[in-house]
Amino acid sequence: MPKFVNRRIVLASRPHGAPTPENFRIEDAPMPEISEGKVLLKTLYLSLDPYMRGRMDAAKSYAAPVEIDAVMEGGTVAQVIHSQNSRFSVGDFVLSHSGWQSYAASDGTGVRKLNPRLAPLSTALGVLGMPGFTAYAGLLTIGQPKPGETVVVAAAAGPVGATVGQIAKLKGAKTIGIAGGAEKCAYLRDELKFDAALDHRGPNFAEALKAACPDGIDVYFENVGGAVWDAVLPLLNNFARVPVCGLISFYNATSAPAGPDRSAALMRAILVKRLTIRGFIVSDFAEQHGDFLRDMSGWIADGQVKYREDIVEGLDAAPEAFIGLLQGRNFGKLLVRVAEE
Amino acid sequence: MPKFVNRRIVLASRPHGAPTPENFRIEDAPMPEISEGKVLLKTLYLSLDPYMRGRMDAAKSYAAPVEIDAVMEGGTVAQVIHSQNSRFSVGDFVLSHSGWQSYAASDGTGVRKLNPRLAPLSTALGVLGMPGFTAYAGLLTIGQPKPGETVVVAAAAGPVGATVGQIAKLKGAKTIGIAGGAEKCAYLRDELKFDAALDHRGPNFAEALKAACPDGIDVYFENVGGAVWDAVLPLLNNFARVPVCGLISFYNATSAPAGPDRSAALMRAILVKRLTIRGFIVSDFAEQHGDFLRDMSGWIADGQVKYREDIVEGLDAAPEAFIGLLQGRNFGKLLVRVAEE
Repeated sequence: MPKFVNRRIVLASRPHGAPTPENFRIEDAPMPEISEGKVLLKTLYLSLDPYMRGRMDAAKSYAAPVEIDAVMEGGTVAQVIHSQNSRFSVGDFVLSHSGWQSYAASDGTGVRKLNPRLAPLSTALGVLGMPGFTAYAGLLTIGQPKPGETVVVAAAAGPVGATVGQIAKLKGAKTIGIAGGAEKCAYLRDELKFDAALDHRGPNFAEALKAACPDGIDVYFENVGGAVWDAVLPLLNNFARVPVCGLISFYNATSAPAGPDRSAALMRAILVKRLTIRGFIVSDFAEQHGDFLRDMSGWIADGQVKYREDIVEGLDAAPEAFIGLLQGRNFGKLLVRVAEE
Repeated sequence: MPKFVNRRIVLASRPHGAPTPENFRIEDAPMPEISEGKVLLKTLYLSLDPYMRGRMDAAKSYAAPVEIDAVMEGGTVAQVIHSQNSRFSVGDFVLSHSGWQSYAASDGTGVRKLNPRLAPLSTALGVLGMPGFTAYAGLLTIGQPKPGETVVVAAAAGPVGATVGQIAKLKGAKTIGIAGGAEKCAYLRDELKFDAALDHRGPNFAEALKAACPDGIDVYFENVGGAVWDAVLPLLNNFARVPVCGLISFYNATSAPAGPDRSAALMRAILVKRLTIRGFIVSDFAEQHGDFLRDMSGWIADGQVKYREDIVEGLDAAPEAFIGLLQGRNFGKLLVRVAEE
């Protein structure tokens, strides 16, 4: 029964620096079996996110690494195709954590039903899912933008950054987005109504950022690190808040950058400017999830928050798409359409 | 009238690295004149504090630098010896900011009357003054120690650190102090009842710290930076809080340390451990001053918070005492007795 074979992508080897296609292996496995209490899920959409790079390393980050030969982890939208669990019926759409594979068995833990009439199913992995909630909780809880303040966000055309900028705007802040390339910057200005958008690959980026922030920076939502952070730090105002959500520019680094050691200067800036720098992951704010769904659904319905998806076709395309994600090649929330809805 | 000459210490030149006696000049100046609305203050105690090192540099920190040939700044306990201000009477004891001099004129701005029957006058510069309030506000507002958590404080025999440790203990935390030398460590353990005290100059300091913190570190109150911070960072638990109060080990630095650049690793630790690192100065928490005076007065009266002073005699001794402060030579709150009470 070839059509019931479970196509899956496993971690073949750990990357040294940037992942390559050889770090992944596409294979066909037997269909998962389900027993009492379980459901069989068919993957419709797989979410590709920067955090997955950390799972490919042996070092523990937030979570344990993916083992060699194990299926790559990932959030998914799936449909129940077989159920021995009274909570789920065949045909239900769900948000699950099935990973990079066509089918998965689940006991229902962490699986949440989705109503396809309320919002497109794919949004459960984007603006109404982990990236949107990350933006919401990090910006509002740590960043706390106030009317008239200047909010800067990097990776601003991505699903987290775009949402951060639009929420900041809703809260009355001046919003500056940083992205890679003219097309993304035009999108931020024209579609999402950022007050300014800057290409971090452009010449004189640091000077352009300074010119765009004549009153300094009150909130910097950190997704990237590296040269963007270097340009932001001198512009931070006293009492600025820096939610640290991601550091994508470092994820492929294989050694510490050359000196001098600027960590002392960073601590001094924290002291003298009385900065708050705080790391977080979205699960730290689980108690806000109801507020998030209510607020974000309303904002999307009102057209106050827009979103963009970048969908690649077929599970086999996932490794190349993920490699591109780490280089900023995607434009919008990166999803893999594993099967038609 | 030689006895009415105003002895004062001015900034003769800006230090390159550690200050030397040549950076200061002791001189005799005419007595300050007072006019309507002003008071003439006679300095009794001058406080010497690490922040003064920053004022000696040309670069702006929290506050403007001391100008060359200007009197060094500093908090003082003084007595009113002449008054043309209805708020003050001759004989009043006050907390003032007279600087490194024997007499000063003031219009009363920022001058607060002290009741010598409530507490020894010198405590207004220490445990009941800026250092005590710094410890209180930074620890409780940013550090937020919870019962059973581990709190580590550096420069723990100093007036800020000793107070931090004792308040943390009052809040039910396990308290680890770091200080320079066996005598200070014994004081922390035996007099202030810290759970452990470690000499940062000892061999294998980092290993000793790790052994003293088997459950990791939940709050690190940062006064020093440098090698102590390097030993603390790997031990910080998820969700640890780091109030950044001072970085005394960097104050005399003349260039950034050699590489590699560890600032990226610091940002990564902030992200992965979801740390909160927040700089502050005590004036940021002015609204808590009433609570501080009430709580701290009570704790001192109950014997729950103890303090130690290191008093040097005579204004002329201030430069050498200040140079020693930056080397950790003082043992307790460093004060200069400028005149007898």
